[in-house]
Amino acid sequence: MTGSAGRPSPETIGVVTLALQRAFGNRCVTSEAVRQQHAHTTTWLENQPPDIVVFAESAEDVRTVVKLCAEHKVPVIPFGAGSSLEGHLNAPRGGVSLDVSGMKKIIAVHPEDLDCVVEPGVTRKELNDYLRSYGLFFPIDPGADASIGGMVSTRASGTNAVRYGTMKDNVIALEAVLPNGETITTARRAKKTSAGYDLARLLIGAEGTLGVVTKITLKLHGLPEAISAGVCPFPSVKAAADATIMTIQSGLPVARIELLDALQVKAVNVYSKLSLPESPLLLLEFHGSEQGVAEQATRFGDIATEFGGGPFEWATKPEDRSRLWQARHDSYWAVSSLRPGIKPFATDVCVPISHLAACIEETQADIASLGLIAPIVGHVGDGNFHTSVLVDSSSPEEMKVVKGFLTRLVERAHRMEGTCTGEHGVGQGKMAYLDAELGTGTLDAMRAIKRALDPDNIMNPGKIFTL
Amino acid sequence: MTGSAGRPSPETIGVVTLALQRAFGNRCVTSEAVRQQHAHTTTWLENQPPDIVVFAESAEDVRTVVKLCAEHKVPVIPFGAGSSLEGHLNAPRGGVSLDVSGMKKIIAVHPEDLDCVVEPGVTRKELNDYLRSYGLFFPIDPGADASIGGMVSTRASGTNAVRYGTMKDNVIALEAVLPNGETITTARRAKKTSAGYDLARLLIGAEGTLGVVTKITLKLHGLPEAISAGVCPFPSVKAAADATIMTIQSGLPVARIELLDALQVKAVNVYSKLSLPESPLLLLEFHGSEQGVAEQATRFGDIATEFGGGPFEWATKPEDRSRLWQARHDSYWAVSSLRPGIKPFATDVCVPISHLAACIEETQADIASLGLIAPIVGHVGDGNFHTSVLVDSSSPEEMKVVKGFLTRLVERAHRMEGTCTGEHGVGQGKMAYLDAELGTGTLDAMRAIKRALDPDNIMNPGKIFTL
Repeated sequence: MTGSAGRPSPETIGVVTLALQRAFGNRCVTSEAVRQQHAHTTTWLENQPPDIVVFAESAEDVRTVVKLCAEHKVPVIPFGAGSSLEGHLNAPRGGVSLDVSGMKKIIAVHPEDLDCVVEPGVTRKELNDYLRSYGLFFPIDPGADASIGGMVSTRASGTNAVRYGTMKDNVIALEAVLPNGETITTARRAKKTSAGYDLARLLIGAEGTLGVVTKITLKLHGLPEAISAGVCPFPSVKAAADATIMTIQSGLPVARIELLDALQVKAVNVYSKLSLPESPLLLLEFHGSEQGVAEQATRFGDIATEFGGGPFEWATKPEDRSRLWQARHDSYWAVSSLRPGIKPFATDVCVPISHLAACIEETQADIASLGLIAPIVGHVGDGNFHTSVLVDSSSPEEMKVVKGFLTRLVERAHRMEGTCTGEHGVGQGKMAYLDAELGTGTLDAMRAIKRALDPDNIMNPGKIFTL
Repeated sequence: MTGSAGRPSPETIGVVTLALQRAFGNRCVTSEAVRQQHAHTTTWLENQPPDIVVFAESAEDVRTVVKLCAEHKVPVIPFGAGSSLEGHLNAPRGGVSLDVSGMKKIIAVHPEDLDCVVEPGVTRKELNDYLRSYGLFFPIDPGADASIGGMVSTRASGTNAVRYGTMKDNVIALEAVLPNGETITTARRAKKTSAGYDLARLLIGAEGTLGVVTKITLKLHGLPEAISAGVCPFPSVKAAADATIMTIQSGLPVARIELLDALQVKAVNVYSKLSLPESPLLLLEFHGSEQGVAEQATRFGDIATEFGGGPFEWATKPEDRSRLWQARHDSYWAVSSLRPGIKPFATDVCVPISHLAACIEETQADIASLGLIAPIVGHVGDGNFHTSVLVDSSSPEEMKVVKGFLTRLVERAHRMEGTCTGEHGVGQGKMAYLDAELGTGTLDAMRAIKRALDPDNIMNPGKIFTL
């Protein structure tokens, strides 16, 4: 899967390096540290560095790199913030890591239209800092301070998806450089269109295998008049999941509804110096008018009580709320504290919400029987959950156990009509599961599209599926 | 554009007809009336009947037809309810109209997951009648009682899109028969996924040019606890548009916000025996809790006043509300009453909402200067509006004037960063405008995908773009 087959010859890399150095000067880097850092991701997968890293500052730079690489059939791996989890940024065939993190222009904000136009290197926090003075925000929040381009490419979602949808629901149009070096624009700035194939949605989640995104038109939302957040303990994962189902079903427009299992709460308490009740916990956030938020809170409190949960405690002050969500976002790092010196191996699956409690409980039982340390957090409103397994990746025995666990987790999700990944993407890490999930015919259709747009397989090769 | 080039030979049609008659008996029809009825759509375009109509009752029937047509390179035109507007159902190269209106199974409803699985021939009204006992509904409402399969294929949206999104936002997964006869499933039933290319979104809005949809998994919503609707007159289109912008910007979760211009109100009053104020009018609907709906209404009333609108009158009784929305849905037919015996020619464009008032006002000025009768209605929360031009299609002079008007309308939308079609689709009617809208590179990418999945161009040929 990650061999060197199809790697360009050293001569070709030499020629391309020279041409890129000529074009980009010291923005073309071949030092080992920078190359390794560009393949490095928060993953258990082996680091496979590119041959060259180019720091692009404009769409024109992107075009230059892609055209040169197309001419020489050299792989191009788009790089944003480096926060992806499934080896998306590895370069199994070498080539050029095209770092767009310097493309940080916020080109336009249109407050009347609730949209903005940005370059791919803008991160979600940078964007939201910028938007605050307009009274606007961009809701998608995968936890990490990912780049918008990366969030497009992995179809990111995160904690706010239950109310605001995922990246696919919040992109109006994309500009992208295709593998042939041609720049396309998928649509105009109107909020909706039915003019031709939805190329934006095709590029969203394509993990950089069909082109490099150079400009993104995003939907925005007005900052809510009122935001309130709270925590609610439950006697069991099932009780918390059932309360979530009832919350969603009753149409409560909850902005976030996150599950932490007892072990995850323990880790968060230690790492973030909190004193949350160490049982299955729902973290919630409501957006709306003062009156609307209060009404939602009351209704959720009633639902929680019905399922044996509570007390439902509010973080009324903004600083308490921020602290709570920062703790949630730091949960990945908090996990490390449970086994110092060991990097957690994070994975996610997503199932219909009716199967969520069973899927999590079976997974917890598997974790217990294997003696693993693997806390669970979930975007439960969407049926999506994560586990971070503390595994010593230098130990073949431990890795073997963890790989068996991962395979059973995916099989369990499949058995429950779910997917091997709700939001992390396929990259290299989940390639093995796609055939079982979607069938060969579906993958063949994806392959046909890939071959049509990228006949030489230069765009982020070796990801999602084999050709 | 609609010539007979590429039409299969009479011998080939003969062979295919025989094979289809053998397979489908009297569900294979070649009578002129049925053929013409299957090309007929609510459009100004010439009727181009298929050679054969097959009434499919199952996905297996669809596979049989597609495989046979693939073998003989005969066009297949999927047909749902026949309510599309841009000549999508015409058969410029002849072939088989594959009528899936008999595929009416509601395969499953999952109330806990807020989803259902249906066959493509189910219409939106049939689905909502069925869902009512579950306390659920499917929100997308393009006016006509379209089939769900057709709504997928044209990326339909309509009056509820401002709150609930369009078809692209409400489909979880599709099963489809590709041009090679292979059946694919785009995803599992989980609410979100990042497992591979988003083939569902590629098929949504592909107008049947990439495959025939045979099964659809849809997101559902709980029936709101309270619904209220109302009408509010404004002194000008601009005032109504500005009030709409403010409503959207302030985050009011309005379910529908529709503009009727004064002439459209007049037509509706006559046709639906109402006595609405004959000025630019907003029709609104709010969904939520009793308290939430009341709060929304009050806040909208304040906004309307701020822009010189009002009084804002409520239809509190369900029957009054139904009557109001039925009148809105009948607006297309109401237009006919303004010039008896003449069929309106309906078109739509969509622009960023900040340009909406200018786009409508310039369009009204053009209508006035040409002496046309052409009322305007709009899904103004999305920046999308329609005009129905009363034109005698048998008069070349009138048609010339109307085509000039249409071209200027599209050019105006383009100049204002909009699209030639927000929700009707391209079909044959809007093909001429796509290059100016998206550029040749973008269309070439669409063509490459089309050729990759349908190398013999059998699926609904002659639509969206030329190959």
